[in-house]
Amino acid sequence: MTAFSLDPRLTADCEWLADLALCKVLLLKDANYPWLVLVPQVANCKEIIDLSDTQQEQFWRESAAVSRVLQQLFKPDKLNVAALGNMVPQLHIHHIARFKNDISWPKPVWGQHPAKSYDADLLAERSAKIVQLLNL
Amino acid sequence: MTAFSLDPRLTADCEWLADLALCKVLLLKDANYPWLVLVPQVANCKEIIDLSDTQQEQFWRESAAVSRVLQQLFKPDKLNVAALGNMVPQLHIHHIARFKNDISWPKPVWGQHPAKSYDADLLAERSAKIVQLLNL
Repeated sequence: MTAFSLDPRLTADCEWLADLALCKVLLLKDANYPWLVLVPQVANCKEIIDLSDTQQEQFWRESAAVSRVLQQLFKPDKLNVAALGNMVPQLHIHHIARFKNDISWPKPVWGQHPAKSYDADLLAERSAKIVQLLNL
Repeated sequence: MTAFSLDPRLTADCEWLADLALCKVLLLKDANYPWLVLVPQVANCKEIIDLSDTQQEQFWRESAAVSRVLQQLFKPDKLNVAALGNMVPQLHIHHIARFKNDISWPKPVWGQHPAKSYDADLLAERSAKIVQLLNL
């Protein structure tokens, strides 16, 4: 039994925002899109169906909460919600606010464009607003 | 209030396999990957969070069932589960069995390669096996 620890690539690519009952909420450091990542704090978990039924229910409640925050804050044309994990097998689920005028629309975001660095003020402001709306 | 009807593009690209309590189960006609699509039979639904809480719970139960069928039948290296919908806004969620030796690995499948036609026998056999394992 190994304890949960965040994959080093997720640590490098993301800003930690909050810990919910089950998941860590991370902001992906790519200013091209408002992009949150949920990571269940469960060791050795690769697929959603590796979680117990109770954990899956909690996972989707937290996914819905994060989706609602993105919708309220950014009024996107579409949300993209995806568990892929071909590169980083630790279970993580992307929640991305997409816009008809964003740089990759209508394609999926992965592999389209290099990440755009955040301005420090924007990163701080965006992070604070998201955490506030998560109502922790 | 409009009644639910399947988006014409999903109708064209997919083979209908089954109706579950909430979702249609479709097989995407691309022999490059075992690829199922769940479509909740709810009118005017674009995002997962447009579903009621009860519908969301049912949706994720059906998503888990479909994921388990793909895992049992194909023993993939990774499942990709994704609600994108930038092109077809009607809510639908992809469930794709991915392999380290598939044609797009480790990239996401969308926009990588044109769909590969199914051999009719393989399509019939695969469809029958999936429906059998769904235990309808």
